[in-house]
Amino acid sequence: MTEHSPPAVAVVDAQSPGNVGTIARAMKNFGFEELLLVDPPTLDPDGEAYGYAGQAREDILPNATEVTFTELTTNYHTIGCTAITGEDDRSHVRFPFSTPADLADRLPTVAADTALVFGRERIGLTNDELAALDECCSIPASADYPVLNLGQAATITLYELRGLTLAANETQLPEVERVRAEPQTLELVYDRWAQLLETIGHPEEKRPKTMRMLRRIYGRADLTEREATTMVGLLRRATERPETD
Amino acid sequence: MTEHSPPAVAVVDAQSPGNVGTIARAMKNFGFEELLLVDPPTLDPDGEAYGYAGQAREDILPNATEVTFTELTTNYHTIGCTAITGEDDRSHVRFPFSTPADLADRLPTVAADTALVFGRERIGLTNDELAALDECCSIPASADYPVLNLGQAATITLYELRGLTLAANETQLPEVERVRAEPQTLELVYDRWAQLLETIGHPEEKRPKTMRMLRRIYGRADLTEREATTMVGLLRRATERPETD
Repeated sequence: MTEHSPPAVAVVDAQSPGNVGTIARAMKNFGFEELLLVDPPTLDPDGEAYGYAGQAREDILPNATEVTFTELTTNYHTIGCTAITGEDDRSHVRFPFSTPADLADRLPTVAADTALVFGRERIGLTNDELAALDECCSIPASADYPVLNLGQAATITLYELRGLTLAANETQLPEVERVRAEPQTLELVYDRWAQLLETIGHPEEKRPKTMRMLRRIYGRADLTEREATTMVGLLRRATERPETD
Repeated sequence: MTEHSPPAVAVVDAQSPGNVGTIARAMKNFGFEELLLVDPPTLDPDGEAYGYAGQAREDILPNATEVTFTELTTNYHTIGCTAITGEDDRSHVRFPFSTPADLADRLPTVAADTALVFGRERIGLTNDELAALDECCSIPASADYPVLNLGQAATITLYELRGLTLAANETQLPEVERVRAEPQTLELVYDRWAQLLETIGHPEEKRPKTMRMLRRIYGRADLTEREATTMVGLLRRATERPETD
């Protein structure tokens, strides 16, 4: 299989430099690199685009490429993002659509240069523009107010597609799995609780129910090994403490 | 089970009114209602907060409640959002954490008033603040630049948690399933292709492979019923067209 770059991000006719900066920042946060601008506003290095871009002011924003809409549709497999979809398959302009989560499942298998296309503020992508793009994508949102701000829509889409650019071990998050308590350590926690219930004279007929409750609590809490070991120590000392009188 | 409201959204010590407006808009887009502000900036009805809020300027923003940090931790199950987590379980301030997707799986079962807590720009929530909250949440992002803008972080978190507030039929998106082509209609498409291959004299030994390719293409494309029916008609006419000479 041919190696292809992660999708490019194209912004069509944005009016607000701040939104372009916000999109550049989200690209940097989620590992995207190629920013394409169709009819962009002026991006003043001392203005809002650079002010909103965070560290993307160092590379993504200054390296952005200005292209025409025709160059975009000619050179890329294009996916237009819109809040307003068609209601059914009578028209093909805005229907069928994928959600960003659908795209996250499917795009890794598409071997072609792809561009995610976001439209101008207020009206988004026009019907004529969408008709010229290969696919539609829409973010599920409240039926009462589904229209997202341009920068926020791009942020969510890039977040959902981060798997195309970042392997799991390339995020900032450590693996939680590796510190999760071993089942044996959790059993020690329950053993210690059983001893403590006996020591404090918890009525024998109630103990099975109480033990089940404790298992449910720790089961939901997903203890780390260290938390479990600490619990064992605390319970042991609660059980073995010297009589106070 | 007791009915509880969807989670509240709390913003601690934001400096930029624009970010408060952005968060209010995301709340409205994803069905959240209760906005709590700790040490907020002045929210001028003619300023950036209202300018960025979209339709949330009508309700969420004017109905926001100013609270102290102590009121927040006393009255809510609090989940602090931070880009910077601990590396392992030696410290409990920023570890273990959940991702927004983890929370989306787990929160519906928690019957308690919950608040999602977002910290100020630049430094986010402090260690002291996080230590006073019940849980941590962190958005997976690029290890090179995991720090999201406040408004963008809240937007992604609320997007992931939309299932707590919006039933699937309360988004703006129509159900795609109901217009997906029936298998019988797809079989008609393949029958028509088989006839067309014969009519155009496609070599007989190549036909099985070509038919497999066609099945793969339509299989991936997830045709709607109308698209499939149209294909059947096009292929029929291609097969039955009068000889041109």
